[in-house]
Amino acid sequence: MNDVRILTETDLRERVKLDAEVISVIEAAFETLTDDRVVMPPILSMHMPDINGELDVKTAYVPGLSGFAVKLSPGFFDNPSKGLPSTSGLMVVLSTETGRVQAVLLDNGYLTDIRTAAAGGVAAHHLSRVDCRRATIMGAGLQARMQLQALRLVRPISEVTIWARDVAKARIFASELQQEGLTAQASTDPAAAVSGADIIVTTTPASQPILQADWLQPGQHVTAMGSDQAGKNELDPHCLSRADLYVADRVGQTRVLGELRAALSLDLLSPDAEIPELGHIVSGRHPGRTSPDQITIADLTGTGVQDTAIATYALDAFSKEP
Amino acid sequence: MNDVRILTETDLRERVKLDAEVISVIEAAFETLTDDRVVMPPILSMHMPDINGELDVKTAYVPGLSGFAVKLSPGFFDNPSKGLPSTSGLMVVLSTETGRVQAVLLDNGYLTDIRTAAAGGVAAHHLSRVDCRRATIMGAGLQARMQLQALRLVRPISEVTIWARDVAKARIFASELQQEGLTAQASTDPAAAVSGADIIVTTTPASQPILQADWLQPGQHVTAMGSDQAGKNELDPHCLSRADLYVADRVGQTRVLGELRAALSLDLLSPDAEIPELGHIVSGRHPGRTSPDQITIADLTGTGVQDTAIATYALDAFSKEP
Repeated sequence: MNDVRILTETDLRERVKLDAEVISVIEAAFETLTDDRVVMPPILSMHMPDINGELDVKTAYVPGLSGFAVKLSPGFFDNPSKGLPSTSGLMVVLSTETGRVQAVLLDNGYLTDIRTAAAGGVAAHHLSRVDCRRATIMGAGLQARMQLQALRLVRPISEVTIWARDVAKARIFASELQQEGLTAQASTDPAAAVSGADIIVTTTPASQPILQADWLQPGQHVTAMGSDQAGKNELDPHCLSRADLYVADRVGQTRVLGELRAALSLDLLSPDAEIPELGHIVSGRHPGRTSPDQITIADLTGTGVQDTAIATYALDAFSKEP
Repeated sequence: MNDVRILTETDLRERVKLDAEVISVIEAAFETLTDDRVVMPPILSMHMPDINGELDVKTAYVPGLSGFAVKLSPGFFDNPSKGLPSTSGLMVVLSTETGRVQAVLLDNGYLTDIRTAAAGGVAAHHLSRVDCRRATIMGAGLQARMQLQALRLVRPISEVTIWARDVAKARIFASELQQEGLTAQASTDPAAAVSGADIIVTTTPASQPILQADWLQPGQHVTAMGSDQAGKNELDPHCLSRADLYVADRVGQTRVLGELRAALSLDLLSPDAEIPELGHIVSGRHPGRTSPDQITIADLTGTGVQDTAIATYALDAFSKEP
C-alpha cells in the first residue's frame, strides 16, 4: 500500500509558474515566519570537498498547513564540465497529521528557483519605491533572469542594465530582454551599471563584494540573494551601515550565511541591533521604507518556510485537478 | 526525462532482509566511519510540540560509494491512537558523481529498522563473549524482536528473557519465541531478568534508567539502542563507570543523544576520556573486549553512515536484477 504522490520536474513546470499567485504564496510564508509556532531548524549542510560537492537540507513546520516540506539541495560544482547543472534535488512533503510521506516532488531544483525568485519579488514589493522603473541585475545566470521576472510582476520595470563578471553572458541576457521589448544593456563597469538604478539585485556566487557602498544612491533598493553560504559575500559590508534599512529573510541565517556576517565581523552593526525580517514588513509589524529617499537592502539566504510553502502549493495544484 | 528509481516498502521488504550479509554491510559502514574523509553532519532535528511530532534527518558521505543517502525519519506520537505506527519516512539516494537523485526508497522506516538491528548484531559480534547463549531483551516492540534476531545471527542464543514495562507485551513476545523453539520467558522483575544474562539489549524509549549498575555481572555485554534523543536514558549512568569498556557508535552523538550524556553530566566520566567507537573495534584499532570477565557496553544512537550503507546496498540489490 503506497499512496505517495510522485511528481516529476515536467509535471511541476507545467503547473507551477513564477506569477503573482506564487509571489503571494511566498509573501504569506514570510508572514507566518514571524509566528512563534513556526519551527524552522538550522540548515543541515554537508560539504564533500573531495568530490567538490555540497548538500543543504532545509525544512520548516508551519501550523495550519496540511504538510511540511523537507528539501534536499545538492550542489556539485564539477557538473557543468559534464554538461549538467550544478544544482538539482527534490522536495518531500510529509503530513502534519501523521508525519507520513504525502508526496515526492522530483523538481531538480525548479521549485527552489521559483520560491527564491518569488522572495525577490516580495522584497521589492515591500521595500522598493512604487515607481521603480530602472533595474540593474548583477549576474547573468538563471536566477538573474528569474529575479528580473519577479521584479516585473511587482514593479513597472522598463529599463534594465545587466552587469556580470563574464560580459559575454551579460550581453546575451541583455539581448534576450531587448527581444522582449525592454530597454536593456550590458555594462562592463559595475559602478556605472548601478548608477541611476531604482532596484539592484545581486544574483552571483561572489565571495568578494561586487557592490560597493559608495556607489549607492538615495532611493535605491538592493536585494542581495546570491549569498547562502558562509564563504559568500556580494555586498561591501559598509552597504549595510550606509543603508537606512537592512532587512533579513531570517536573521539567524543572514548572520552566518548572508551579507550580515561580514558586516558583523567588521563591527559595522551592533550584534544587539534589532534587525527586522521580511515577515515583519509584510505583516506591518515594521513600517519598512518610510521615505522615497531611503536606501533599503534585503538579504535573502533562502528559508525552509519558502520550501514548505511552495511544495504544499504545488501539491495542492495537483490535488485540485479533476 | 526522469530516471529516478522509486522503490516501495513492499519492494524493499522482499529484497532486503536482516541477515548475515546486511550485518556485514553495517559492520563495514562502521569501519568507514573511522575514515577521516567520511563526512557525517550533525542530525537535523525538528520538534513540533503542538502536533506531538518530530523529524530527524540523517546523512553521511562515504568515499568510494556510488551514492549517499539522506534519511527522513518522522516520529508522530499520536499515530498509534489512529492505528498507525509512530515512525515512517523514506531515504533518498543521491549520486556521489553528480549529486542528482538516483532513487527514492519509500520504506516507511523499514530500512532504518534493519540497519538499527544490524548495528546491534555488529556490537554483539565484536564485544560480547563468543559463547553467549542467554540474552535478555528489555522492551517488547518491533526493535526488541529485531535486535534478538540480529543477536541470533552472531551468537548461539538459546535462552531468552524478556522484560518490558507492559508485562502482557513481554509475555506475547516470549510466547512467540517459544513457538520458534527457543527457551523463553517473560519477567516482571528487571533485576532478576538481567541476572545471569550473557547479553542484555535495551530497546525502549525510556527517559529514566531501566538497567541499574549494581545489577551488572562480570562477563556481560550490554547494548543500549533505545536512546537517540537528548531526553532519553535507558542505563543508570553508573553503568558506564562500572563497565570495563564503553563503546559509542559515534561519540559526537552519544555525548548529546545517548547514554553518555547522563554519565558526563554526573561527571562519572572525564570529558576528555578517549572513548572508542564501534568502528575502532571493527577495524582492530582498539582491541575491544580483552577478557571474558569484562563488562562491555555499546551505546547506539543510529548514524548516517548506516543509512547510506543500507540504502546503497538496497539499491544495488535492485540494480543487479535481470
